[in-house]
Amino acid sequence: MTHQDFLKLAVAEGKKGMENKIGGPFGAVIVKNGEVIAKGSNRVTSTNDPTAHAEVTVIRLACEKLQDFQLSGCILYSSCEPCPMCLGAIYWARPDKVYYASSKVDAADAGFDDDFIYKELELPHAERSIPFEQDRIKESVTLFDDWKEMEGKTEY
Amino acid sequence: MTHQDFLKLAVAEGKKGMENKIGGPFGAVIVKNGEVIAKGSNRVTSTNDPTAHAEVTVIRLACEKLQDFQLSGCILYSSCEPCPMCLGAIYWARPDKVYYASSKVDAADAGFDDDFIYKELELPHAERSIPFEQDRIKESVTLFDDWKEMEGKTEY
Repeated sequence: MTHQDFLKLAVAEGKKGMENKIGGPFGAVIVKNGEVIAKGSNRVTSTNDPTAHAEVTVIRLACEKLQDFQLSGCILYSSCEPCPMCLGAIYWARPDKVYYASSKVDAADAGFDDDFIYKELELPHAERSIPFEQDRIKESVTLFDDWKEMEGKTEY
Repeated sequence: MTHQDFLKLAVAEGKKGMENKIGGPFGAVIVKNGEVIAKGSNRVTSTNDPTAHAEVTVIRLACEKLQDFQLSGCILYSSCEPCPMCLGAIYWARPDKVYYASSKVDAADAGFDDDFIYKELELPHAERSIPFEQDRIKESVTLFDDWKEMEGKTEY
C-alpha cells in the first residue's frame, strides 16, 4: 500500500465515524512496518470526551497494542491536519512521520476551531479567549525539585 | 477555598502521582461552583498513554461526571502551564479560566518537552523534527462537504 492508500483509509474511517454518528468527520490510522496497527475516528460527541479526536484516539489504541507510550517506527495518517492538541499528542507519542489530507483551513471552513486555536496559542495569556493566569506557588517549585532528585523514575 | 488553595490541591495531586509512580510530577483539578468535580495526575507511563497528562486526565474525568463534552462554568487548576496538547484540549473543552503554577520553562528545566513543542509549532512543516506532509486527496475534500450538508449532526 502507498502513503496515499493509507490516507484514503484514514478518510474512510472518518466517513464511517461521521455516518455512524460517533463524532466529527475525522479519521486516522497508524502504520508500523507497512501494517495498520490502529485505526479510528473522532468520537467526541458519542463519548463525551473532548480529547477524543481521531489522532488522539489512534495514538491511544496503538500504544495500548504495543504496550508502550512511544510510537517509534510508526507513521500516523490523518484525514486532516492535526489541531494543536493532536499535534502535541503526536510530539509526546513520537511517531516517525505524519501524513495528512485536508488542512486546518479546510477544517475551519467546515466549522471546526483548529485554525482559531492555532492563533490563540500565539496570544499573550491575558488576551486569550480563555484566560490563563499564573501563580507560581512554592509547592510547585518544590515538586519539580523532588522529581529531579527522584531515583528509579520512568522518564518520557 | 481560594484560587491558591485549589492550585495547592493540583500540586498535591501531582506529588501523589509522582510518589506512587503513576507518572510525571503534574496534577490538576477542575472546579465548578466552588466544588472540586475532578482531580488527577499525569499517568503516561503507568497506563502507556502519552496523552494522559494531568489536564487531559481531569478534563476526561470531569466530562464523564457531567456527561457533557463541554466544561462551561468550570475552572481548571494545573500544577504547571499546559503543554500545547493540553492547551488544545482546554480549548476544545472550553472551561471559563485556567490557573497554573509552574511555567513551561520550569517544566523544560525538569526534563520535559513542553517548551520544545511550543517552538516546533511555529516551524514550517518540513523543518519540524517530526515531518508533516500534506496530500490533499479528493476524498478528504468530499468528506468535509458531506459533513457540511449532513442533517441532524451534533456539532462541537
